Amino acid sequence: MTASATDHPGPILGLDVGGTKIAALLVDDGDRELARRSFPVDGRPLADQVVAAARSTLDAVGAEVRPAAIGIGAPGQIDPEAGTLRLAVNLSEAALPIATIVGEALGVPCWVDHDARAAAAWLYQRAGGSESLGSLAYLSVGTGISAGVIVDGRLLRGVSGLAGEVGHLLAVPEGPTCACGLSGCLEAVAAGPAVARLAADAVAAGRGGALAAGADAAEVYRLAEAGDEAARRIVADVGRHLARAIRGLALAFGVDHVVVGGGLARAGATFLQPILDELERERRASALVREAIGPQHIELLPAGMEAGTWGAVHIARSGLRATSPDPDQRREVADG
Amino acid sequence: MTASATDHPGPILGLDVGGTKIAALLVDDGDRELARRSFPVDGRPLADQVVAAARSTLDAVGAEVRPAAIGIGAPGQIDPEAGTLRLAVNLSEAALPIATIVGEALGVPCWVDHDARAAAAWLYQRAGGSESLGSLAYLSVGTGISAGVIVDGRLLRGVSGLAGEVGHLLAVPEGPTCACGLSGCLEAVAAGPAVARLAADAVAAGRGGALAAGADAAEVYRLAEAGDEAARRIVADVGRHLARAIRGLALAFGVDHVVVGGGLARAGATFLQPILDELERERRASALVREAIGPQHIELLPAGMEAGTWGAVHIARSGLRATSPDPDQRREVADG
Repeated sequence: MTASATDHPGPILGLDVGGTKIAALLVDDGDRELARRSFPVDGRPLADQVVAAARSTLDAVGAEVRPAAIGIGAPGQIDPEAGTLRLAVNLSEAALPIATIVGEALGVPCWVDHDARAAAAWLYQRAGGSESLGSLAYLSVGTGISAGVIVDGRLLRGVSGLAGEVGHLLAVPEGPTCACGLSGCLEAVAAGPAVARLAADAVAAGRGGALAAGADAAEVYRLAEAGDEAARRIVADVGRHLARAIRGLALAFGVDHVVVGGGLARAGATFLQPILDELERERRASALVREAIGPQHIELLPAGMEAGTWGAVHIARSGLRATSPDPDQRREVADG
Repeated sequence: MTASATDHPGPILGLDVGGTKIAALLVDDGDRELARRSFPVDGRPLADQVVAAARSTLDAVGAEVRPAAIGIGAPGQIDPEAGTLRLAVNLSEAALPIATIVGEALGVPCWVDHDARAAAAWLYQRAGGSESLGSLAYLSVGTGISAGVIVDGRLLRGVSGLAGEVGHLLAVPEGPTCACGLSGCLEAVAAGPAVARLAADAVAAGRGGALAAGADAAEVYRLAEAGDEAARRIVADVGRHLARAIRGLALAFGVDHVVVGGGLARAGATFLQPILDELERERRASALVREAIGPQHIELLPAGMEAGTWGAVHIARSGLRATSPDPDQRREVADG
């Protein structure tokens, strides 16, 4: 890799657009954090909210810090060339030219890509790339569920741009209705809103234990950690569904390294242990599962590590490199 | 591509080793069929049976035809470098050095690789490769279920060599026990033995219609085509499970082109229509599914086209090219 202007382009702003919040991270060339902010998503047009989040984050550090590029990570079907996003089932927008809108509003080059895919690419690079790891799946479990998958050293995008939409694998035939319109999707039984719904169901049925009406997923995991039986049952169910999906990922993609992040994963061991317990049951039953994946291959994103915003920073840097006049820089993107 | 000795190496013998039969195909340089045979799998050691199948096929054309190479396609976890197969859940062998055994017995270079992956590679090449198709999944539904998947122009192998083992995605939580040891796998509810079991269950429960005790999958599909209600119910169930798996493949891998083959697919429209019916229901319910896959993207392997044995021929030719002294020939394998 040769040194060039794009090695030190200046600060980068990453924006991770989720179903419930927009997380922003401004870093300098040396990956030092200059600012970190989080903004709840409300009913306004999404592009307006993203622009406001970007402005507010930049305002916090003063006018003298001007980002060289902005990267946006978002769920759904992203066209990185066109800079658009659509079919983000947890966002209410379709075919939105988000990169153009945000780039023009801020007067800064802007790129958009899939949130989980960008996080996976960043985690893979951080772990040493293809010289260290043959494969990596980053499974994000938050308001929605999706994955970024790197197999045989290559990040999968797919013809449709939908590769990694594992939140809509079947979990429970004829199960709860999913935001995507199907029923029984993994996302409909194991993402944040599903956890809250299970809690509400338990309360309504008079078996809610310490759960209160309106408890969100974070509260369910807090109570489970504190030993509440009703919360623990919900958390065990979610872990079982996720373990089966991780087994499916390991078998379908042949990946042997899975990192789990997203809002629910912040509960730490309370979130991870039921997944590992179910996988252990499956490993005892099946030589195929023993071969495909072991507990040493599954890790939680370390506490405090926001793969979503770092993935968004990675999107901006990849965009800068891909449009660099230096061919050595461009090649690096093609290889990655 | 430059002409070289490996362009015209002589006849190639392909052996497709399945759970119930070994299919053999001997072709010449111009892909003309010199011999085609099928041998039921019995209780003898698998390697002995494969050697016998190879000898018998070659005997049929006489001593003057000597193959330049043998390719073996088999299910399970294949190590193409070592020439071994293991974890083939529908075969009773483990860690078998099949390529060495068969190659030495016949005195011919021999390679082994995964059956569905080889069939996918052959189908992809036949369709024009990456210049024609961005992605292709070949789903084989026979004694077992597995897939060969090409995404963004690359055949997935995975770190474990297990990429494409989609027969063990979840179909029915706490469902029937699978040959792999898990329960409720797709293979346990939608492969050949599962169809036979569903027929036996229906007969035992007195709702078997025209089904007789001991009906196999082919018989169930024949009766379904003839309009028997009991058989049609089984066929519809299998189609629903397979449709959900195909939707999962389309979303997880981002493939937009799915070819379905294997023993069950030989039933033609009786097999395919229930899959298309369920996918149409899903497409009506979900914009995500409408985007991911349409009926025009799913096709049956044409009647009489044996992708398994052609895949095995492809394995042998790839092996010859990979070991060719001509670097242009070797490069082609690395790219493909």
